[in-house]
Amino acid sequence: MPTTSEVPDRQRQVEDELVRKVLASFEQTPDPRLKQLMQALVRHLHAFLREVRLSQDEWQYAIDFLTATGHITTEHRQEFVLLSDVLGASMQTININHASDDEATEATVLGPFFVEDSPEIPLGGDMAADAPGEPCWVEGTVTDTDGNPVPGARLEVWEADEDGLYDVQYDDGHLAGRAHLYTDDQGNYTFWGLTPTPYPIPHDGPVGHLLDKTARSPMRASHLHFKATAPGLRTLVTHIFVDGDQMLDSDAVFGVKRSLVKRFDRQPGGTLTPDGRELGGQSWSRVRFDIVLPKTS
Amino acid sequence: MPTTSEVPDRQRQVEDELVRKVLASFEQTPDPRLKQLMQALVRHLHAFLREVRLSQDEWQYAIDFLTATGHITTEHRQEFVLLSDVLGASMQTININHASDDEATEATVLGPFFVEDSPEIPLGGDMAADAPGEPCWVEGTVTDTDGNPVPGARLEVWEADEDGLYDVQYDDGHLAGRAHLYTDDQGNYTFWGLTPTPYPIPHDGPVGHLLDKTARSPMRASHLHFKATAPGLRTLVTHIFVDGDQMLDSDAVFGVKRSLVKRFDRQPGGTLTPDGRELGGQSWSRVRFDIVLPKTS
Repeated sequence: MPTTSEVPDRQRQVEDELVRKVLASFEQTPDPRLKQLMQALVRHLHAFLREVRLSQDEWQYAIDFLTATGHITTEHRQEFVLLSDVLGASMQTININHASDDEATEATVLGPFFVEDSPEIPLGGDMAADAPGEPCWVEGTVTDTDGNPVPGARLEVWEADEDGLYDVQYDDGHLAGRAHLYTDDQGNYTFWGLTPTPYPIPHDGPVGHLLDKTARSPMRASHLHFKATAPGLRTLVTHIFVDGDQMLDSDAVFGVKRSLVKRFDRQPGGTLTPDGRELGGQSWSRVRFDIVLPKTS
Repeated sequence: MPTTSEVPDRQRQVEDELVRKVLASFEQTPDPRLKQLMQALVRHLHAFLREVRLSQDEWQYAIDFLTATGHITTEHRQEFVLLSDVLGASMQTININHASDDEATEATVLGPFFVEDSPEIPLGGDMAADAPGEPCWVEGTVTDTDGNPVPGARLEVWEADEDGLYDVQYDDGHLAGRAHLYTDDQGNYTFWGLTPTPYPIPHDGPVGHLLDKTARSPMRASHLHFKATAPGLRTLVTHIFVDGDQMLDSDAVFGVKRSLVKRFDRQPGGTLTPDGRELGGQSWSRVRFDIVLPKTS
């Protein structure tokens, strides 16, 4: 396959001329932002096609891939989000919209398993409900970037169980491994969750097939999701990851940031719990996650 | 929105680092061509996201657009092909795979309405069947690039009726406005079809909505499809367009090439037909299309 630079002049002119025509077709777009987006999309899309000298069969494969991705997508399974995730596009969009900042807690991907109506739990409550796994005591403080505590900040937390499944993946309507709670007057929070474990993204569809063909793992690094909201402060969507987890460098969706990797201290069975909860000899873990939210500009 | 060049150094490093990680994730792809395609896709996709500083809402809009495109696509309607068409990607792929060549007839898009099992007609036969429209006498010669006639070349021809619809769009299983025939011993062919008329691509779905939002017309320039195949020669997929058609410069799928615009001579009702066919006083037209096929390399 020739690269663009090896394409004869006359052929290059034909291809250039088409790009100009397609760009011109979007010139009358009333909304200036939509015009910018479509013209940039056309430039980058055609640059890709021309650089790789896409064959007709490859074009057909792409059409078939997108069609299969559309057909497997339902209200409960979003294969296009998965595709965006494994191409790093979801994470790059997060990077672009959360300017790197020394002071604020870093953001990462929302993922497909967030649900709006989680149950509320009190401080120190158990968000795991009946989800199986090792108990994990989570504590921290929410502050703004000036160090002021944020009382009444709303924290949404959610995670997979030890079988690697979120409640919604059981398709039986039960809620477990998700909750929301509010920080106290000093901006502190505590709750019981589960020690996170690695699990694969859904990989029985077109995206899983792509990962397989490209010798990539579908595994995500172990993590616990947070969404933090408070009036006048920027909403944060993030995870915390488990220090020492083997998947930290090969997370399927590129969600890991060093600052979000936390030490989960494992406690042998019988160790006294912070709130006196009786775990019947089961091991547990504890982690601290202090959250810093920037002011909205 | 800042452009990439206005992004602070530290932020740019974060975004660069992610691109490197995503590229590295495809490094072990066993098939070298797939590796090339995926890494080029990642580079161009991230360059697009970073250049336009895509917002989270725009990312969500893109996910929803692709989902709707997938859900409207069926065995009989290919909205992803339409999307590729209106972005000029289908036509650019054809350009890339049909090197510009002074001697051979130019190619254009296949379109979504080709059907494998068209009826055979004899030379001079009527491919319109019961499709409504003005009769059109089509004649020409198939030669190779050395000027040798090609006897027995198979020509597939198909077109919309005067209501702008292909037979398959009626969803009733009838075939009309499509046929195949073979050139004679001198490489000549003749058949009756319909004078082509402009028609819109299906525009009641996501792609039609995009055209509407960008002030683009869904109309295609009037055309008659050809697919020519002969042993030892490169298969040609093309159309002929109607000289003077108002849509030649705004074809929704960018299929028009100057060399494919032909004079359709309109004949008043009562004019004698080439084969003595009796048209009952109806007007008709005639066009000549000589096809030149290059040898397969």
